[in-house]
Amino acid sequence: MRATTIHAAHDIRVDDVPDAAVRTPHDAVVQVLRACICGSDLWAYRGEAAREPGQRIGHEFLGVIAETGPEVSGFSVGDLVVAPFMWSDGRCEYCADGLTTSCVDGGFWGEPGSDGGQGEAVRVPYADATLVKLPADAAGDDRLLTGLLALSDVLGTGHHAALGAGVRPGSTVAVVGDGAVGLCGVLAARRLGAERIIALGRHQARTDLARTFGATDVVAERGEAAVAAVRELTGGRGAHAVIEAVGTEQSMRTAVGITRPGGAIGWVGVPHGSGSGLDMRALFDNNIAVRGGVAPVRSYIPELLPDVLDGTLDPAPVFDLTVDLAGVPDGYRAMDRRTALKVLVTP
Amino acid sequence: MRATTIHAAHDIRVDDVPDAAVRTPHDAVVQVLRACICGSDLWAYRGEAAREPGQRIGHEFLGVIAETGPEVSGFSVGDLVVAPFMWSDGRCEYCADGLTTSCVDGGFWGEPGSDGGQGEAVRVPYADATLVKLPADAAGDDRLLTGLLALSDVLGTGHHAALGAGVRPGSTVAVVGDGAVGLCGVLAARRLGAERIIALGRHQARTDLARTFGATDVVAERGEAAVAAVRELTGGRGAHAVIEAVGTEQSMRTAVGITRPGGAIGWVGVPHGSGSGLDMRALFDNNIAVRGGVAPVRSYIPELLPDVLDGTLDPAPVFDLTVDLAGVPDGYRAMDRRTALKVLVTP
Repeated sequence: MRATTIHAAHDIRVDDVPDAAVRTPHDAVVQVLRACICGSDLWAYRGEAAREPGQRIGHEFLGVIAETGPEVSGFSVGDLVVAPFMWSDGRCEYCADGLTTSCVDGGFWGEPGSDGGQGEAVRVPYADATLVKLPADAAGDDRLLTGLLALSDVLGTGHHAALGAGVRPGSTVAVVGDGAVGLCGVLAARRLGAERIIALGRHQARTDLARTFGATDVVAERGEAAVAAVRELTGGRGAHAVIEAVGTEQSMRTAVGITRPGGAIGWVGVPHGSGSGLDMRALFDNNIAVRGGVAPVRSYIPELLPDVLDGTLDPAPVFDLTVDLAGVPDGYRAMDRRTALKVLVTP
Repeated sequence: MRATTIHAAHDIRVDDVPDAAVRTPHDAVVQVLRACICGSDLWAYRGEAAREPGQRIGHEFLGVIAETGPEVSGFSVGDLVVAPFMWSDGRCEYCADGLTTSCVDGGFWGEPGSDGGQGEAVRVPYADATLVKLPADAAGDDRLLTGLLALSDVLGTGHHAALGAGVRPGSTVAVVGDGAVGLCGVLAARRLGAERIIALGRHQARTDLARTFGATDVVAERGEAAVAAVRELTGGRGAHAVIEAVGTEQSMRTAVGITRPGGAIGWVGVPHGSGSGLDMRALFDNNIAVRGGVAPVRSYIPELLPDVLDGTLDPAPVFDLTVDLAGVPDGYRAMDRRTALKVLVTP
């Protein structure tokens, strides 16, 4: 089969690889209908996160069950399913707590020895616990299918950030980061009842989308000017709930600066840089909580899925460029240059 | 009157100062019956926190109302009261949220222009909002009075840490720091229903007290060895709830290392050092929350007071040395040398 591989910084290829196949009794094979490129894939693409030459890549996909191992009882060949960005066994104590990302048997698509999402098919370990069934007729609805793909990562990650930030009905929320996760954070905050949502971003196409998703205010400034602007909008206080969806020290500093005393930062930007960007004295004096991390999106899919199916939540517009499998390298280039927000892959 | 002043590192004196007096209509003057020295006072004593020469010091006290301004309606001369370590107006939006430490009119005892707790009397701004009345007969019960003094800071601060760490019935809790706040964190964790409480500390008198307060295990190691020991005790997982009551980078590193994925660090150690001690990648990968800060103890006194009065909570043993006002400089020396855990002052 064909699948995307990464060989070095800026060297993304689509190669012939061994066919995805059931290897253990709890595996299933999913024929990929939709995959995509994640902002976090760019860290590998830019050489800032190490990869073995030839390693698979891509961790977001949905598709159709092509084969099941003998222990798989929840799915049949032909079922339409979505996968979260990590697999999990569904039976360890972390899975019982809903923290599927800490599963003792868990793993990340594309890690050595596993298939990546940006390919024709994927072997899914612990299929019963990992996959979530989608209505069969969704396969015929292009826009819906694209929205459902967001359940594999960005929508659940935005939801995780909103929960970490403590968004409640009536909250004032600020969102640092205008990428797909930040935009999904806007969607999630609106869904949780935020009254005011301040989106920080400089790219008008993205901030326009933030407004469509529910942002009530946009702040185009960066750094200290952004802090001053958010404080100005919030009577000098800052936002109760701040979503951090970038992962740099600078973005975390901004997040700390715009959080109201007693508020919380829900952070989901994969951390980069050796420092934390956290001014501990500011956190201490103001009782600002920092809560987040890698989102256990598997646990959120059952809650978010009905809202995507009925159109209450429509994250599909975060995908603004579509490529076929051969076009994946072009898709990386487009995201790297920020000419695309998020690239949809249709193998 | 006589009050404690700080002139430079290691230069604590007891001086003649102007009598505490009502200056604004909402002030009251409290004649101090009990005060104490806080671990955080040592940062000033050691020259690690700047003070103006001659500045007052001490932020924990209880006593008797000696004078009230015309707008004070809740207290009369002769009432026995305890003060939290900051005053607050009781009417701003932060006070309404219970975050009295962020009060827009708030302040810290001993800050320039205010009286400190380690003196004969203290002018209390916003007396109605700041002070809490105690039963008059407590004045005749030495041990109870000492326990009630802990409501001014260390008991409420331990409670804040336990809440920040998310202690629940059945939790496994680890406490980093064997000072008075850490020990009160043990008390608070037990009160909130923790099943297992692991106290980290090397001073046997303190860890013995931790056991008296409810600790089920003691870890005497430090640094990486402490992390390994706590992991060993928790099946490799770490503790759900970790109380950080030191404030150094090393103690925060230890706290991160012993927190179970999905758990939280409740931190109340005043941060010192330029770094955070936070390994952001570890926090991210394991969804460890960091939540705490300066404790709004005023908001906790009504909840904790009944338990101190009926003996359910008895923090009195954290005070292991008593001095009169003239003995305060000796008290600082004893705490600085760790020959005393916490010094009670009886002016």
